[in-house]
Amino acid sequence: MTLDDLQNGYFIWQHEQGFRFGMDAVLLSSYAKVRRDESVLDLGTGNGIIPLLLASKTQSRQIRGIELFEKNVSLANKSISYNSLEDRIGIKEGDIREIRSLFDAASFDVAVSNPPYMPAGHGFVAPDEEKAAARHEIRCTVFDVAAAASFVLKGGGRFYMVHRPERLSDIFRAFDANHLEIKRMRFVHPSYGREPNLLLLEARKGAASGVRIEAPLYVYDENGNYTEETLSFYGMP
Amino acid sequence: MTLDDLQNGYFIWQHEQGFRFGMDAVLLSSYAKVRRDESVLDLGTGNGIIPLLLASKTQSRQIRGIELFEKNVSLANKSISYNSLEDRIGIKEGDIREIRSLFDAASFDVAVSNPPYMPAGHGFVAPDEEKAAARHEIRCTVFDVAAAASFVLKGGGRFYMVHRPERLSDIFRAFDANHLEIKRMRFVHPSYGREPNLLLLEARKGAASGVRIEAPLYVYDENGNYTEETLSFYGMP
Repeated sequence: MTLDDLQNGYFIWQHEQGFRFGMDAVLLSSYAKVRRDESVLDLGTGNGIIPLLLASKTQSRQIRGIELFEKNVSLANKSISYNSLEDRIGIKEGDIREIRSLFDAASFDVAVSNPPYMPAGHGFVAPDEEKAAARHEIRCTVFDVAAAASFVLKGGGRFYMVHRPERLSDIFRAFDANHLEIKRMRFVHPSYGREPNLLLLEARKGAASGVRIEAPLYVYDENGNYTEETLSFYGMP
Repeated sequence: MTLDDLQNGYFIWQHEQGFRFGMDAVLLSSYAKVRRDESVLDLGTGNGIIPLLLASKTQSRQIRGIELFEKNVSLANKSISYNSLEDRIGIKEGDIREIRSLFDAASFDVAVSNPPYMPAGHGFVAPDEEKAAARHEIRCTVFDVAAAASFVLKGGGRFYMVHRPERLSDIFRAFDANHLEIKRMRFVHPSYGREPNLLLLEARKGAASGVRIEAPLYVYDENGNYTEETLSFYGMP
């Protein structure tokens, strides 16, 4: 196990093997807007990285996570306790496909998720079950995630997600079937002139159609260094 | 009436008032790929600008257009005749909502459209009926356009469209309902750092999901001049 400095006042315990957080989680937690009086649920929270980042980036005092693997839940709780965040963050063990038995309907203002990106059966599947489930839609699909978000969100509630651009039509289909309307979207490009490899989005439950595509986000500048905007997401000047 | 040089060997007759072609048509006709042996139908062809541009940019010898307003059909025919393109381009007067009575099912390899962008009832509606119909979804919606494209396209046939980014969820819904799968998409930004104001897309009838988001297209450079890529679409060096 490693204890990593999140550079925001908090630390996270991570397995050396298994799932370790990446830039996706950092981008998503910066993209998500959660006010002080709002509750937020992270769907498939893994080692709790997104709740930990949201604890630093927002004032919310009701940050919840749901996670399938007991091993990850333990790790997340270890970090929560290490950072004395028990009063703001709580993690529940469970399957988001059974969300109806775990949370009340329309009980959250905001939901977030960094779900598996790849359809089951595509490309290399990691031998580690937990790592495989984080990457491939083995234990939950984008449709399952959208259905869970829609169930827990209040009317007009917001769902923030990071995903791969190539899944855009599946995302629209899944969201449409679950009364989630994408209102804002931003493509993340490795650098200027390159195709995007991630997308960030904000959807609202029950909203009218009409989406704002934001200016591209470039991760690296022409010299291969983080852009100022990327640095700001890591809380660096 | 004015006779405008398309800078590609052809000329177009346009009304001084009424609909006059813009960059959208130029971008769409460059984005659409049509091979020599392929047939292509322009849905809502207006004064025939897209068929005229396709005649220059592609080798297709079966370029067809359908247009609602008789006045536009006459104008398009005047340009076709002026450029001696009668053997390659043909325009039919008719309503794309009645496509089934105008064309055979599965009879085209490619369809293209630069449809009205705004929902009926939104914003300023031009007093000129033909200009209003070109801008607002009064006489046809994106759903009507998708249904018409799907009807005329062969299985695996391609549909190229230019539209506004804010309509993206309506576009996905309309295409999904008509078995058109978006495979390629490019956002058009006025300049670096600005949000996109147009999008270009390629869909395929009956394809599996999976979309490629291309690198952004910037129309102007930092000095307010056309970028090299924009110039190339106008056939300039």
